[in-house]
Amino acid sequence: MTFDLPRRLVAEILGSAILVATVVGSGIMADRLSGDAAVSLLGNTIPTGAILMVLISIFGPISGAHFNPVVTLVFAARREMQVATSFGYILAQIAGGLAGTAIAHAMFDLPILQVSGTARTGAGQWIAEMVATFGLVLTILCGLRFRRDTIPWLVGLYITAAYWFTASTSFANPAVAIARSLTDTFSGIRAVDLPGFIAAEIAGALLAAVFAGWLLSGRDNGISSAAAEGAE
Amino acid sequence: MTFDLPRRLVAEILGSAILVATVVGSGIMADRLSGDAAVSLLGNTIPTGAILMVLISIFGPISGAHFNPVVTLVFAARREMQVATSFGYILAQIAGGLAGTAIAHAMFDLPILQVSGTARTGAGQWIAEMVATFGLVLTILCGLRFRRDTIPWLVGLYITAAYWFTASTSFANPAVAIARSLTDTFSGIRAVDLPGFIAAEIAGALLAAVFAGWLLSGRDNGISSAAAEGAE
Amino acid sequence: MTFDLPRRLVAEILGSAILVATVVGSGIMADRLSGDAAVSLLGNTIPTGAILMVLISIFGPISGAHFNPVVTLVFAARREMQVATSFGYILAQIAGGLAGTAIAHAMFDLPILQVSGTARTGAGQWIAEMVATFGLVLTILCGLRFRRDTIPWLVGLYITAAYWFTASTSFANPAVAIARSLTDTFSGIRAVDLPGFIAAEIAGALLAAVFAGWLLSGRDNGISSAAAEGAE
Amino acid sequence: MTFDLPRRLVAEILGSAILVATVVGSGIMADRLSGDAAVSLLGNTIPTGAILMVLISIFGPISGAHFNPVVTLVFAARREMQVATSFGYILAQIAGGLAGTAIAHAMFDLPILQVSGTARTGAGQWIAEMVATFGLVLTILCGLRFRRDTIPWLVGLYITAAYWFTASTSFANPAVAIARSLTDTFSGIRAVDLPGFIAAEIAGALLAAVFAGWLLSGRDNGISSAAAEGAE
Repeated sequence: MTFDLPRRLVAEILGSAILVATVVGSGIMADRLSGDAAVSLLGNTIPTGAILMVLISIFGPISGAHFNPVVTLVFAARREMQVATSFGYILAQIAGGLAGTAIAHAMFDLPILQVSGTARTGAGQWIAEMVATFGLVLTILCGLRFRRDTIPWLVGLYITAAYWFTASTSFANPAVAIARSLTDTFSGIRAVDLPGFIAAEIAGALLAAVFAGWLLSGRDNGISSAAAEGAE
Repeated sequence: MTFDLPRRLVAEILGSAILVATVVGSGIMADRLSGDAAVSLLGNTIPTGAILMVLISIFGPISGAHFNPVVTLVFAARREMQVATSFGYILAQIAGGLAGTAIAHAMFDLPILQVSGTARTGAGQWIAEMVATFGLVLTILCGLRFRRDTIPWLVGLYITAAYWFTASTSFANPAVAIARSLTDTFSGIRAVDLPGFIAAEIAGALLAAVFAGWLLSGRDNGISSAAAEGAE
Repeated sequence: MTFDLPRRLVAEILGSAILVATVVGSGIMADRLSGDAAVSLLGNTIPTGAILMVLISIFGPISGAHFNPVVTLVFAARREMQVATSFGYILAQIAGGLAGTAIAHAMFDLPILQVSGTARTGAGQWIAEMVATFGLVLTILCGLRFRRDTIPWLVGLYITAAYWFTASTSFANPAVAIARSLTDTFSGIRAVDLPGFIAAEIAGALLAAVFAGWLLSGRDNGISSAAAEGAE
Repeated sequence: MTFDLPRRLVAEILGSAILVATVVGSGIMADRLSGDAAVSLLGNTIPTGAILMVLISIFGPISGAHFNPVVTLVFAARREMQVATSFGYILAQIAGGLAGTAIAHAMFDLPILQVSGTARTGAGQWIAEMVATFGLVLTILCGLRFRRDTIPWLVGLYITAAYWFTASTSFANPAVAIARSLTDTFSGIRAVDLPGFIAAEIAGALLAAVFAGWLLSGRDNGISSAAAEGAE
């Protein structure tokens, strides 16, 4: 089943918009309601993981459900996608993300246009973003290879975990990062901190693509693989 | 496998009743136990998402598990359901919802009949309800098309997310909204605020139906759809 | 694949023991750690739902994974199980439950034998137990009919919801109720309150069995069932 | 599909590293953000369960996704794995775990090398570790037998429950225990307490292997197994 480019781009725009509206909107809701920052992060994490499972399920068959420039970049680098199309995808993701922030603000009666003042910078944050994106791309590439129909669950679960185990709460997505620079709420990030995040995300994604290329090219070399049979 | 109309209507009544009993009952429980409003919302969200997965799984094969007048409206508009049947469904959903509120009150030793005093109104709330219902109907229509057997999980996950990312905590259901106007507890809504909510829900649902009609009619126009193959 | 009676009974004992150890143990852990009763209930709910999914998955193919006298009673009443076997099952479930309480106490360095002082009585509680058990049995019977392989998920999700939407936190299981009367911790119940709970549970279970017997006997009477096709 | 030994060992190293980075990292995040220890444990539990589901899904087809010396030990004892390979696996798991702790510290701007001061000892803790590991190995062995494709979900759900129902928060893994002795944060354990934990884990694992060997060898002895057919 295949869809034409306009529909694929619309799926990327709308999926990215709903994803960002969820990240930003649930952050606002959680922050308003709670006096405990970990409860707020739970209230931000659970909706984000859940909506990813939904969005990848419903838009995956149309556009592939990238919603993320570095994911598109990896598919382009693997020659599984034309360069021209990948540019279209990335623009769609950024535009969708910006719309998502605006929708969240409109729902919560906040100014549509905002500038974030939340500093997110330093070596720890950059390492965290690199780790987060490495894991995300590895999850996608291995998942596509071994358990294609579970990809929506795997990506949602991965991000659920990564919100907590990375010091940056795992943006792992340049389009989402850009969109989050335009909200001065729980999930915001200063525009000046974007380059560090985006560079780390690209590095993590490319590293994962190279690593997965090696890992998944493996075949039996004659040594018994009983363990692989034994526990999965 | 098909079921006769009485059983289908009973499934809609009972499903709507259990759904509303969960929304109202878990709201009462969470509000009584917690001193943190975000923890209360978590205690309202997790049961609601979970029971939706159960109810759609067990009643879906009988009635379609609508439990929601705008979902029924969309199927009627798509000519997948007779108009007379759809009226029966909607009445069943409203009656079931009212019973659900009564059951929740009985369990928690509260007056069976109550009038909510919780104001939920204004542009932000209406936009939120329109967004929430748009997403719900889109999830159902795309899910039915691509991953029919996962519909129970997708709807439960979508509502889990929407409780947090929409400013209205995502009623997204006129029958549930009416039922919630009769409880003066955590999940209540003033009767006077119902028209705004219901209008927004109908608008969001119809918009989603039109949009999905366009989106899902797409077919290959000759442009490679490698991306769609690449990530789902 | 079938298993002999000793193995089936051992599966019922061990499954009931792990289930009760989880209910009681996670209640102790949550209550010790938290200052917010709703957070404690979350810390009791999530492990209980999760372990049910595991236990039903791993013991279901051996014993049917009842772990619950009223579930066994329903299968006996439906003549899907011999009366003698059902007595064995019920004794196994009660014995396993008692062992589970003891194991939880041992792990948390508490006296092995305790008497609960937690009052759980009154009309609201009894209605709640009847509703909770009605829903549980309905979930099992409909699930077995329509989506047999998802039963472990459905039961775990149902109990996750029922912990919150019923005023009694949904014991819904006489063997678990008896076992909980022997712990004076978060999840305890006074022995004197057991008869009311157990009577309500039996009533709810039998009501569900009768109702499901009617509901699931339905077949097409010629009226179009487009809705059933439309949304599941 | 089989993979050569280097790739299998790398999968064990990387999987163990990401697992430990999640356990330690989410513990740090949760502890920093929350003033309620149960919320912190939730913030530690949910990511750990989620990442296990992901890691077993994506590395299971390569290495079997043990990430745990006692799991490897059980497969070796069952002759499903060569002894030499099992040594390689265990070294890979320990090395990966240590790397995971270091990565977590780097992300959170903490000293890479730390010594834990958290005492975890005594009979209750040891019983808890034995119970936790018994349940984990039983889940894996029964899961492999009955529902192989759900193993990633079952293990993740089991650990989600075990974090709460065992008094030790269920390490259940010597490689993870060793790695946690090198962090002086939420999830740490004193090096001096490791032998008790590891001995209890090995005991629980071997007990489960023997028990599962008996339980799963069962076949029909002529007694009707209607119950097994009735509810799974």
